[in-house]
Amino acid sequence: MSDTTAVPGKQSGGPVDPAVYAARMERAAVSAADAGLAGVIVTPGPDLGWLTGYRPHTSERLTALLLTRGKRPQLLVPALERPDAERAPGAGALAVTGWTDGQDPYAALAPLLDERGRYGVSDNAWALHLLALQRARPAVAYGAFTEVLPMLRAVKDAYEVDRLAAAGAAADATYEEIVKLRFAGRREREVAADLARLLRENGHSQVDFTVVGSGPNGANPHHDAGDRVIETGDMVVMDFGGLLDGYGSDTTRTVHVGEPSAEERKVHDVVREAQQAAFEAVRPGVACQDIDRVARQVIRSAGYGEYFIHRTGHGIGVTTHEPPYLVAGEHLPLVPGMCFSIEPGIYLPGRFGVRIEDIVTCTDSAGRRLNNTDREMRIVA
Amino acid sequence: MSDTTAVPGKQSGGPVDPAVYAARMERAAVSAADAGLAGVIVTPGPDLGWLTGYRPHTSERLTALLLTRGKRPQLLVPALERPDAERAPGAGALAVTGWTDGQDPYAALAPLLDERGRYGVSDNAWALHLLALQRARPAVAYGAFTEVLPMLRAVKDAYEVDRLAAAGAAADATYEEIVKLRFAGRREREVAADLARLLRENGHSQVDFTVVGSGPNGANPHHDAGDRVIETGDMVVMDFGGLLDGYGSDTTRTVHVGEPSAEERKVHDVVREAQQAAFEAVRPGVACQDIDRVARQVIRSAGYGEYFIHRTGHGIGVTTHEPPYLVAGEHLPLVPGMCFSIEPGIYLPGRFGVRIEDIVTCTDSAGRRLNNTDREMRIVA
Repeated sequence: MSDTTAVPGKQSGGPVDPAVYAARMERAAVSAADAGLAGVIVTPGPDLGWLTGYRPHTSERLTALLLTRGKRPQLLVPALERPDAERAPGAGALAVTGWTDGQDPYAALAPLLDERGRYGVSDNAWALHLLALQRARPAVAYGAFTEVLPMLRAVKDAYEVDRLAAAGAAADATYEEIVKLRFAGRREREVAADLARLLRENGHSQVDFTVVGSGPNGANPHHDAGDRVIETGDMVVMDFGGLLDGYGSDTTRTVHVGEPSAEERKVHDVVREAQQAAFEAVRPGVACQDIDRVARQVIRSAGYGEYFIHRTGHGIGVTTHEPPYLVAGEHLPLVPGMCFSIEPGIYLPGRFGVRIEDIVTCTDSAGRRLNNTDREMRIVA
Repeated sequence: MSDTTAVPGKQSGGPVDPAVYAARMERAAVSAADAGLAGVIVTPGPDLGWLTGYRPHTSERLTALLLTRGKRPQLLVPALERPDAERAPGAGALAVTGWTDGQDPYAALAPLLDERGRYGVSDNAWALHLLALQRARPAVAYGAFTEVLPMLRAVKDAYEVDRLAAAGAAADATYEEIVKLRFAGRREREVAADLARLLRENGHSQVDFTVVGSGPNGANPHHDAGDRVIETGDMVVMDFGGLLDGYGSDTTRTVHVGEPSAEERKVHDVVREAQQAAFEAVRPGVACQDIDRVARQVIRSAGYGEYFIHRTGHGIGVTTHEPPYLVAGEHLPLVPGMCFSIEPGIYLPGRFGVRIEDIVTCTDSAGRRLNNTDREMRIVA
């Protein structure tokens, strides 16, 4: 690409009110201090977009936001990109400094760091930048946000929950439309293209995934959508989502083409019960891993434990994978405002798979689903 | 997105012959050893795609390729993604190991590392992964490829130069078509959309950037394309490219709507001379920074030195920004097979800008342009 041109990042949307960004930056700096950090270093990607509204692409040229409690946020950018940075909705709260090709940006950032401090850094910060910073200030310690500040974006405010609910409703509308279309005789890819089209028609600015796993392909939870022609008698796992107004959608339903067998019904029932039980377990204070355990227990009791081969869920917000993770070993307690998927599945190799997924938010007392299409197995044509 | 679903990476294309990947991995391991490294650690992105043909998306789940001279390449992947990894064209040469949600993938990778060794790591490896590895093996040292192994992908073989030439030819065809269209009275965005359409019609699978900077917008080298209506009398900088068959295109031409002024002609001539002089300076053994210096000298002599505010160029291959960088301080010598942009510019704030850019490859004796449309200032309508 042009040596001088930033490609707009995939993230877009978000509030336009500068005060929202100033408050997010302030809160991040305070949370960091509370966690024993000297501050946080944020590079391009979802964290920077969420904190400042600035969304440059990631590149070999360093862009870094430094937040330190009680100090003005500092943004270091390539000089060429400074005009863009200064147009970001949160820019009013920032002290923006440009660096020019041929200068050493790490030498510019290093003096701003507490020499003996520990900093949180964006999960997706490039090794190129982190290693250069480590060289420039060898005594400074770093921890990735997921490790040292997992709560940075994990608790959504009312605005954000509303955005996620809107994205969920659009995904739900997509589901209600796709099940009216024909499945038998069409390739997975064609159904996937319909899902993408419907997500866009329902307001998504970006489609991130449209999984259509029919028959044995449904038993590979990683399957995308291929050339297989869907047949009568197939189970079909559909998992789709993207961004609407800057926030993510992600839902899965498993439908059947024509009448299912007794075993297919049973497996679907087990997954539905597991999903329901995990949903009902959601309340403030419950550990993330316990939600996973509840779903797993239902599936294990039904004799399918070995076929549930992934964690139960992941957080969602301005990205579709972020803390909290509902996985064994994650002791983080649920907090009102957290939003995450609950998506147990059973995958019978070579035969078929079932997964049911909703986005759920933790309220003051319980879970609230942001996907609300029914979870019964729909029969499609 | 689905907790279990990888979104295909942006990179695609590349050879299908497994032997090509085996040879690349072997060469990388040998180059690393020659550079004093114990090996290299490669995470999803252009390096992994280039070395193995495997192109998962980047995520919080660790995927890592370990190359060590004399040992079989090791690929550690999330268990769910193992079937995909094993279908990659280069997979035959790999020992693939899966790890399951809830396990610690860093504990699986750490024992494979030389405890006192230094490893090259992908520039874009996530801090999340690098920091976890540093914790798992504190005595191991790491350096980003651009720092410790800049030559990894910098020297292209004949196949790759052919791919870059094909991408360049498609960009050239796009230019020849865009200049026939109307500029005056249309928004920059509309011309940019035409560029994107034409790149696709000419075979690009992906469009990465379509800069249209008219009048004063052309003086911001970082400008993308906006709502400004192009007028007669405007200079218009057009900088566009993307991927064709997995390899990048990137070219810039500056056209004029109607008759230019004497000053506009002069500035364009200076940039053209700078670009030509830099091109003529290309030969094996010349330091990257000397190409930058040659271009800068022409512009400085003409009195515009302060208006050339970025480096002269960057490497291109399976990405559009990679080593070698033609910038002050870069002592790396040119080697036959290197491919890079030469793109000097002059930017007169508030008035207009001119940039001219070709992709150039270094042959055994000189430079060879992979963009071949003329560099005279075209007059458009």
